[in-house]
Amino acid sequence: FGWTCYTRQADGTVALTDSFKRRAAAGGVGSLYGTLRADPWTGVTLETGLSPAEGAQLVNEMQAYALEHGRHGIPILFGEECSHGHMAIGATVFPVPISIGSMWNPDLYRELCRAVALETRSQGGAATYSPVLDVVRDPRWGRTEECYGEDPYLTSVLGRAAVEGLQGPSGDLGADDAILATLKHFAAYGSSEGGRNSAPVHMGPRELHEIDLLPFRHAVDAGARSVMTAYNEIDGVPCTTNRHLLQDILRDAWGFDGFVITDCGALGLLTAGQNTAEDGAEASAQALRAGVDMEMSGEMFDRHLLSAVHSGRLGEADVDLAVRRVLELKFELDLFERPFADPDRARQVIGSGKHRELARRAAAQSLVLLKNDGGVLPLARSAFDSSGGRAGLDGSSAGTDLPEGFGRIAVIGPNADAPYNQLGDYTSPQPDGAITTVLGGLRAALGDAAGERVLHAPGCRIRGESREGFPAALACAEQADAIVLVLGGSSARDFGEGTIDLQTGASVVTGDSWNDMECGEGIDRSTLNLAGVQLELAQEIHKLGKPVIVVYINGRPIAEPWIAEHIPAILEAWYPGQEGGHAIADALLGDVNPSGRLTLGIPKHVGQLPVYHYKRRTRGKRYLEDDFEAQYPFGFGLSYTSFDYSNIRLDRSSIEADGQAVVSVDIRNTGSRAGEEVAQLYVSDLAASVVRPEKMLKGFRKIALEPGQSRTVFFPIGREQLEFVGPDLTWIVEPGNFRLTVGPSSVEGLSIELAVHADKPAAR
Amino acid sequence: FGWTCYTRQADGTVALTDSFKRRAAAGGVGSLYGTLRADPWTGVTLETGLSPAEGAQLVNEMQAYALEHGRHGIPILFGEECSHGHMAIGATVFPVPISIGSMWNPDLYRELCRAVALETRSQGGAATYSPVLDVVRDPRWGRTEECYGEDPYLTSVLGRAAVEGLQGPSGDLGADDAILATLKHFAAYGSSEGGRNSAPVHMGPRELHEIDLLPFRHAVDAGARSVMTAYNEIDGVPCTTNRHLLQDILRDAWGFDGFVITDCGALGLLTAGQNTAEDGAEASAQALRAGVDMEMSGEMFDRHLLSAVHSGRLGEADVDLAVRRVLELKFELDLFERPFADPDRARQVIGSGKHRELARRAAAQSLVLLKNDGGVLPLARSAFDSSGGRAGLDGSSAGTDLPEGFGRIAVIGPNADAPYNQLGDYTSPQPDGAITTVLGGLRAALGDAAGERVLHAPGCRIRGESREGFPAALACAEQADAIVLVLGGSSARDFGEGTIDLQTGASVVTGDSWNDMECGEGIDRSTLNLAGVQLELAQEIHKLGKPVIVVYINGRPIAEPWIAEHIPAILEAWYPGQEGGHAIADALLGDVNPSGRLTLGIPKHVGQLPVYHYKRRTRGKRYLEDDFEAQYPFGFGLSYTSFDYSNIRLDRSSIEADGQAVVSVDIRNTGSRAGEEVAQLYVSDLAASVVRPEKMLKGFRKIALEPGQSRTVFFPIGREQLEFVGPDLTWIVEPGNFRLTVGPSSVEGLSIELAVHADKPAAR
Ligand SMILES: [Mg+2]
Ligand SMILES: [Mg+2]
Ligand SMILES: [Mg+2]
Ligand SMILES: [Mg+2]
Ligand SMILES: [Mg+2]
Repeated sequence: FGWTCYTRQADGTVALTDSFKRRAAAGGVGSLYGTLRADPWTGVTLETGLSPAEGAQLVNEMQAYALEHGRHGIPILFGEECSHGHMAIGATVFPVPISIGSMWNPDLYRELCRAVALETRSQGGAATYSPVLDVVRDPRWGRTEECYGEDPYLTSVLGRAAVEGLQGPSGDLGADDAILATLKHFAAYGSSEGGRNSAPVHMGPRELHEIDLLPFRHAVDAGARSVMTAYNEIDGVPCTTNRHLLQDILRDAWGFDGFVITDCGALGLLTAGQNTAEDGAEASAQALRAGVDMEMSGEMFDRHLLSAVHSGRLGEADVDLAVRRVLELKFELDLFERPFADPDRARQVIGSGKHRELARRAAAQSLVLLKNDGGVLPLARSAFDSSGGRAGLDGSSAGTDLPEGFGRIAVIGPNADAPYNQLGDYTSPQPDGAITTVLGGLRAALGDAAGERVLHAPGCRIRGESREGFPAALACAEQADAIVLVLGGSSARDFGEGTIDLQTGASVVTGDSWNDMECGEGIDRSTLNLAGVQLELAQEIHKLGKPVIVVYINGRPIAEPWIAEHIPAILEAWYPGQEGGHAIADALLGDVNPSGRLTLGIPKHVGQLPVYHYKRRTRGKRYLEDDFEAQYPFGFGLSYTSFDYSNIRLDRSSIEADGQAVVSVDIRNTGSRAGEEVAQLYVSDLAASVVRPEKMLKGFRKIALEPGQSRTVFFPIGREQLEFVGPDLTWIVEPGNFRLTVGPSSVEGLSIELAVHADKPAAR
Repeated sequence: FGWTCYTRQADGTVALTDSFKRRAAAGGVGSLYGTLRADPWTGVTLETGLSPAEGAQLVNEMQAYALEHGRHGIPILFGEECSHGHMAIGATVFPVPISIGSMWNPDLYRELCRAVALETRSQGGAATYSPVLDVVRDPRWGRTEECYGEDPYLTSVLGRAAVEGLQGPSGDLGADDAILATLKHFAAYGSSEGGRNSAPVHMGPRELHEIDLLPFRHAVDAGARSVMTAYNEIDGVPCTTNRHLLQDILRDAWGFDGFVITDCGALGLLTAGQNTAEDGAEASAQALRAGVDMEMSGEMFDRHLLSAVHSGRLGEADVDLAVRRVLELKFELDLFERPFADPDRARQVIGSGKHRELARRAAAQSLVLLKNDGGVLPLARSAFDSSGGRAGLDGSSAGTDLPEGFGRIAVIGPNADAPYNQLGDYTSPQPDGAITTVLGGLRAALGDAAGERVLHAPGCRIRGESREGFPAALACAEQADAIVLVLGGSSARDFGEGTIDLQTGASVVTGDSWNDMECGEGIDRSTLNLAGVQLELAQEIHKLGKPVIVVYINGRPIAEPWIAEHIPAILEAWYPGQEGGHAIADALLGDVNPSGRLTLGIPKHVGQLPVYHYKRRTRGKRYLEDDFEAQYPFGFGLSYTSFDYSNIRLDRSSIEADGQAVVSVDIRNTGSRAGEEVAQLYVSDLAASVVRPEKMLKGFRKIALEPGQSRTVFFPIGREQLEFVGPDLTWIVEPGNFRLTVGPSSVEGLSIELAVHADKPAAR
């Protein structure tokens, strides 16, 4: 672990530990995990951790030590966590992957990944343990936030964008703004039993290939050179020791040319948990033989590999092969020729204004407007204008007009002003002022007027039963003309921020300061309800009879039918990152027109799971209590304007199995505001030799339209849209009819049929 | 469909329809489904349906017609539903399979199946569509009641008993008390996605073999000659057309020598639902080619098989093979030699006193005492003794002593006196007085005293929000010294009984008389809570501060933590059949000591699913809200006495892979009542080449012990206990250590370790 290799001295300087020096000299440090990582788990704080320049300096010092004193003079590979920005002090905190998915904007995501790569490499980080390509099947899972969503196609597209963005457009891993992407978790980690982290996966080979492996295949195709194994087993075989996955599929079938790393502690899990190895030596040998080349943390390999070779459990050639794969990547990363980072550059690029702006843009793109009855949103900016003027920023009169000259807005709720709660898991400690909350964003947006016009009370905490904040929150809301109620969850670990004082909204450090966390790695849930007394708070606030907007800041779907029914406007923000408060304020005030779309269905109740949209065909329709449909379906999201779909057509009505057709549809902005629409293509194979999903996402386009403007979107239909894993477990296109549907979500759209002619199924 | 082949005439006689005659003459009636079936689904009522003797007469008439007029003079195979007794008017209604499982008593079940076979064959029914060998993984599923439970081993043992009982001890299918057993649903029907009936199954081949196929293999081994395919698909391949299942596994690997029948409408589902066939002809050809020999209902085969042969889609040999398989069974069933039933015999054996007694014994054996804080149960019989005497029937002073001479018991709740609600799905209409409810059972048990001492009010319905019955129920409960609250669910279809009048408890026919049903085929649920206002009723009753006993009558687990916490005594009765009320009264009064044990875990909340006990190893422990453990675990059940386990030992500490050891343990009745204990053997493979469950049930013994009595139970440990499906998908015994645990449930017991020595894994 990299963060254990240095200490901050009494005089403020940073020094390498003796243990690091000893091991580096012995040549035993091939790679270090999380050298720049800071968070409660590592115990690295703002005080003990490294500034951007210090980080670069430290990495240089370590690298120099390894080159100078190491037995073979081999540079260290520094691997870092970059799930949504580099997890180092000062780095830009972007929206989490579930927000990234919601953008439906691979170009913007690629740009974002470029920024992450630049920030990371500028400190000497050469590899990252991203992207997460897990397909979420059960949102009880606490790592839902770390994934793009439930869809294999969308995950494939975004995974490609991530690899291109992290590794750079040239594909030259030696570039000083490129880092090695690591695809994880290979495989099916998003389908664990009961949504329980690392639990067994029940899945047959067809589904595995078609759903869970698909994004990995695309990312390998895009040039990924590192893969991390998943903790889980599939049908009894741990992914960490699954040679079929690592050799037959990944390397032989897909041509993967890189190295495979375990997840942290996965070898230990084999001996104590999954119990497929008697001891660490056996676990290490199994993993290496299966095709693993590197162990994250390296403990087991360090202790056992050599003796495994001596005892004949492993061949020397097995170890050589793994070593060669790692060394090849070190060469490609140019670590031998250019091992050092430039601390000045780190200081300039990390957390730059440009990256903050990018984080804000991404957050804005990711917001999903779930409900807006009667056009409650946007709030007319004019109401907050101290000049008393009526015109909104965009001249529109839509939305909630607050009384002239004295419009007041109450920002209530436990996530209204809780910086860490909007950042998600895998986040570093943040300097004061780095994060803009919803409260901060609204105050900033309303400028002079904000002082008197923007009121605040937390009301309650995310978790816990205390209602002591209700009176203050209700009193606050009473004075307002509109109420923004910021509810949801938190994946924030204990950053020492303390808990919210329910009277003042300030943070107070107590012995129980960790208590908001209800999501994140290891925090799975058996309900999808709002935790604590948040629903009650919403019900009390609702009784006031004023316009209420609920903003959810959270890491997994919230199933609260009462809110869905009674609150007129709901904005799903997920964990929008450091600029999230600005983006949300912009959306509330109409400066940003929400264009995010859901990447997973939000169920009505946990007992309705699963609700992913590509369920294979069957004939049932409902439970006794509920139908099988999500409260808010995959692909869904509203806008402040409206879009009309018309004129779906194909350039030809039939094709050969290897042919291509193009389906197109006209989309018109029929409202009075500019906005962006996500046109989605769903393909239904009307009959097939195996049971197919009712529909599958096979294309999408995010387009911007001015009021009244029309555009035509085109979707090529070819093998990628039509193929599936057939009876003999190979990908085929079968003759037959396909229904193509283009629309604004997975449950609406215009359809047209395409015939595919062939004498027999066509293999890839 | 057999029930469409006759009509009752105006003069009261029963006549064959012209349509039947026409088709029989054409030779197109090979088999008839449900000729004697009566229920709301068929529309056959007590008025239009057949008495036992009439049934036998009709079957004889049909058989004679077919033999005389049929093209080839081939007798018809009459197949009947016998899930828990023959689904014909007048037949004995036994407890449902989930109750049968709870008995843990294969000998009694075999005896019960003998009775079912006798009743069915006496009317000419020669085959039944039982046993159901599905392993329940998700109790949201409405057919949970039709299965023995969640465990593959228990299901295997009971499946064997069913085959032996239905087909008779000699295995001679021609015997006049034998019927052909049909194993269903092949395969994995109990693992459908989301607990939704017939939904896709996500499962790999190892789990399929080890869990879902295991009971079928055992039942084939026990002599089963007919198998029904499941509606669901597995990893995309419908079971109806799965040649790998039907040929490679069932016939080639297991040596099955019989015929395969589809489930009802399954071929239609292929064309409209699963969409793996373009039309009925293709569906029929696919199924036949895969190894199906007969279509239930026969519609598609009738319409399409011939043309499929003519058009070359099917070979003549394919059809011949299926015909031969069916004909062979007809010969073995002796239908050619002895095609006719004896109506007098039918009159004698159907619903006989002996069978009623058997039904009562089975119900008694199946009751699971979940909770009995402070020994609330049994209720002291003396309290109801009009002589004022104190002694209970068994002389015991334990239990709730009601005030001498004026003890009163209130029997409250929607299932206290609702006959059909205690019978489960697949039940025929019942003549008045055939069913004994809990109210009836208590009244009967208390004889003279019952009139004044047993009070009743329904309180509410199973479903619906009406609380209008609360006041009457509370008033009734106020007068009582103890309250038996009979809650739960219902799988009763609309038998025209009407709904309960909440004031009087009487049935009233309304337009909405179907409204209790919340379980049964096609009624899946998204919660496991008590439906309607039952929980509220329990909470109101509880406030009275009197001893309350909750009796659950239901078809799937009820997750109501409030009841589990606050009500001192809980008896789980499932659907105990026609004699259930007697059995429950006996248990409440201590004449029966409950000895049923759970065959599935009862979760705390639906969001905790799955909770089956043989989950493969992993490392998680809890959700944010709850741990992963069931409220009441598999194998659990209390007794009015107590049992002590001691002295676990092995006759040898190690064996070879093909060897056998015997583990034994002493069990002592340490209480003051006679009782039965179910000693359970769980095996844990401490390390293995694939991930194994933490433990698996591999043996059990139900033993009766007098107070103070001790017995030793012995469990052989051999291949069946140790083997599993290894890396290459074959069954193996691996060398290594195994922990053997013998105890009263899946979460308690004494353990000992056994070493298995071998150079390498030993194949079967
Ligand atoms: Mg990890
Ligand atoms: Mg097709
Ligand atoms: Mg059926
Ligand atoms: Mg059936
Ligand atoms: Mg073992």
